[in-house]
Amino acid sequence: MDRSGQPWQTVRHRYVYRNPHRSFVVEGGRIQDGAETDYAYMEAPAAVLVVPLTGDGQLVLVRQFRIPVRDWVWEVPAGGVGDEAPEAAARRELAEEVGGTCAELQAVGWWYGLPSALTSQHHLYFASGVDLGESHQEPTELMEIARIPAEQALEWARNGEIRSAESAYALLRCEPLIRQHLRG
Amino acid sequence: MDRSGQPWQTVRHRYVYRNPHRSFVVEGGRIQDGAETDYAYMEAPAAVLVVPLTGDGQLVLVRQFRIPVRDWVWEVPAGGVGDEAPEAAARRELAEEVGGTCAELQAVGWWYGLPSALTSQHHLYFASGVDLGESHQEPTELMEIARIPAEQALEWARNGEIRSAESAYALLRCEPLIRQHLRG
Repeated sequence: MDRSGQPWQTVRHRYVYRNPHRSFVVEGGRIQDGAETDYAYMEAPAAVLVVPLTGDGQLVLVRQFRIPVRDWVWEVPAGGVGDEAPEAAARRELAEEVGGTCAELQAVGWWYGLPSALTSQHHLYFASGVDLGESHQEPTELMEIARIPAEQALEWARNGEIRSAESAYALLRCEPLIRQHLRG
Repeated sequence: MDRSGQPWQTVRHRYVYRNPHRSFVVEGGRIQDGAETDYAYMEAPAAVLVVPLTGDGQLVLVRQFRIPVRDWVWEVPAGGVGDEAPEAAARRELAEEVGGTCAELQAVGWWYGLPSALTSQHHLYFASGVDLGESHQEPTELMEIARIPAEQALEWARNGEIRSAESAYALLRCEPLIRQHLRG
């Protein structure tokens, strides 16, 4: 396939729903061969995920009730980026969700949250020397906070106990940094 | 937080858009404390992801143009589960997307695709002894197929070259099985 041109030409774009956190788009377009089709996807601001490691070698995870799946899911602290840099959002989410501050915050990388259905880029940060205080959760967050020994949390990422693919991946992406700190 | 009860009680549920592949839901509900709020999410059937390893130690990846992000993204073969078992869907996707057949197909685990915004469970399969033939792609799939040496693909999963968190995680979840086959 020729990747030099634009493989998708938009001919229609409409919002079927909008709120400040996410919007639903139905877009009509033409693929290279001329066939026209509709593609439905979700639009949302960028997000940050934070893997927080305490000074005594524990990872701070959150267990959230997720309405779409009607289930409690272990995840890493995460949230949308507002009118701020991603790093500032990471510090804010760490403070708001788990009441944490950190000695050091390191940008690890970014990915698309779900490129088949979502516009957002998600940025990963590793926070070390984390101290926990009081959290200020938003009303739609049904959440518990837990400190999990790092080896156990990494094992949960590898064995599927963590049912959020993205959170499990975030932990595995930070594994070299976590091990470096555990050795330090 | 008390997890014994139902933390979310639905009071309204409406589809703002539906197609055979995905629907958009806006649900009104009450959280434990009585506050009422709307939650918008996407409904989609279960999906399968397949990590295909050829007999000569290469992983079969696909590079797709993803309309929501306007970008080409490396992913593992994947698709929705129809009126069939997930294992049958995995064999079908392997055949349709990359024209592959496999000597062995192994269920590795499942997760939620994006539990904050999507209802779907995603099932991971590891296919070994994969032979490639001709693919039968759907018209909305703008896709290239590539055979990548296993070590390189795993490195791409660890260094962020693979921009789909879920596909990168799928590769890392299969890493022990891949290494077992490479040694065999």
